[in-house]
Amino acid sequence: MAASGSFSDLAFGPKITVPSSHVFYQSVHSAAFVNLKPIVPGHVLVVPKRSVPRDNQLTEEESTDLWLSVRKVAAVIEKEHGASALNIAMQDGRHAGQSVPHVHFHILPRKGGDFENNDDIYDAIDNFDANPHSKPKLEVPPDSERKHRTSEDMAQEAAHLRTLF
Amino acid sequence: MAASGSFSDLAFGPKITVPSSHVFYQSVHSAAFVNLKPIVPGHVLVVPKRSVPRDNQLTEEESTDLWLSVRKVAAVIEKEHGASALNIAMQDGRHAGQSVPHVHFHILPRKGGDFENNDDIYDAIDNFDANPHSKPKLEVPPDSERKHRTSEDMAQEAAHLRTLF
Repeated sequence: MAASGSFSDLAFGPKITVPSSHVFYQSVHSAAFVNLKPIVPGHVLVVPKRSVPRDNQLTEEESTDLWLSVRKVAAVIEKEHGASALNIAMQDGRHAGQSVPHVHFHILPRKGGDFENNDDIYDAIDNFDANPHSKPKLEVPPDSERKHRTSEDMAQEAAHLRTLF
Repeated sequence: MAASGSFSDLAFGPKITVPSSHVFYQSVHSAAFVNLKPIVPGHVLVVPKRSVPRDNQLTEEESTDLWLSVRKVAAVIEKEHGASALNIAMQDGRHAGQSVPHVHFHILPRKGGDFENNDDIYDAIDNFDANPHSKPKLEVPPDSERKHRTSEDMAQEAAHLRTLF
């Protein structure tokens, strides 16, 4: 399950293609990529390469590979961002707040005092919409206030992260 | 990693002992137990038997067993509660909102319309305090409004869940 030297474009749900330049980690069955609208610096997503909405649609081998990938990515991201903790979360299905119907783990590096109120991270996760095609929700200022990053900016972050695996 | 027929008391962090009657699932390295103050019906916790604060302090074998246990428990809980989705979350370290310094996954079965605003589940997760010794936070009405269940009530739920594995 070692990360490969070459990265591929990645289907993220039925409508989104993550360009290979935004992907920084790949294993046999999983991949990780940087975010268009990170909630905190270092907020990344880890996904199975096979696009299914629910974790229970993955084989045990695929899901185990996904979890071990989360651990590897989490360790690198925590160190890279000088963090002391991590929020690791999966919205497994639409009614759990999943915005793109493709299994994905959020990894958010955390440190003391990064959010004025620790509770705010959860509003931020829920306001987060991984789907670049969706319109900003009018009732969700935190999401609409987050600017889309440029693709070049994202590619630079991914290129750096690749060197850490 | 099959669930054992006999259950043991479980150390949850340095100060809490979960009575065996509240435990409903055990594998080689992991266990699951019912909640004192569930956010939604069926909200349960899955933990490694070895009490460490951070996931990166678990061996790969222990953490893999933990994740496969989450999957097994999640499948049973989702079906049992007629849910259509799950929130699966780990607050990995104090600065991520972890209230008991022992690795734990929250599993919350979700269905359409269970929370008026889907965002509310995150406030609820963060307001959730797994530590029965901690005083209710004055600034957190949702936590203090949730009544502690009786131990008998929790044992009944656990006894029923055991039959499902």
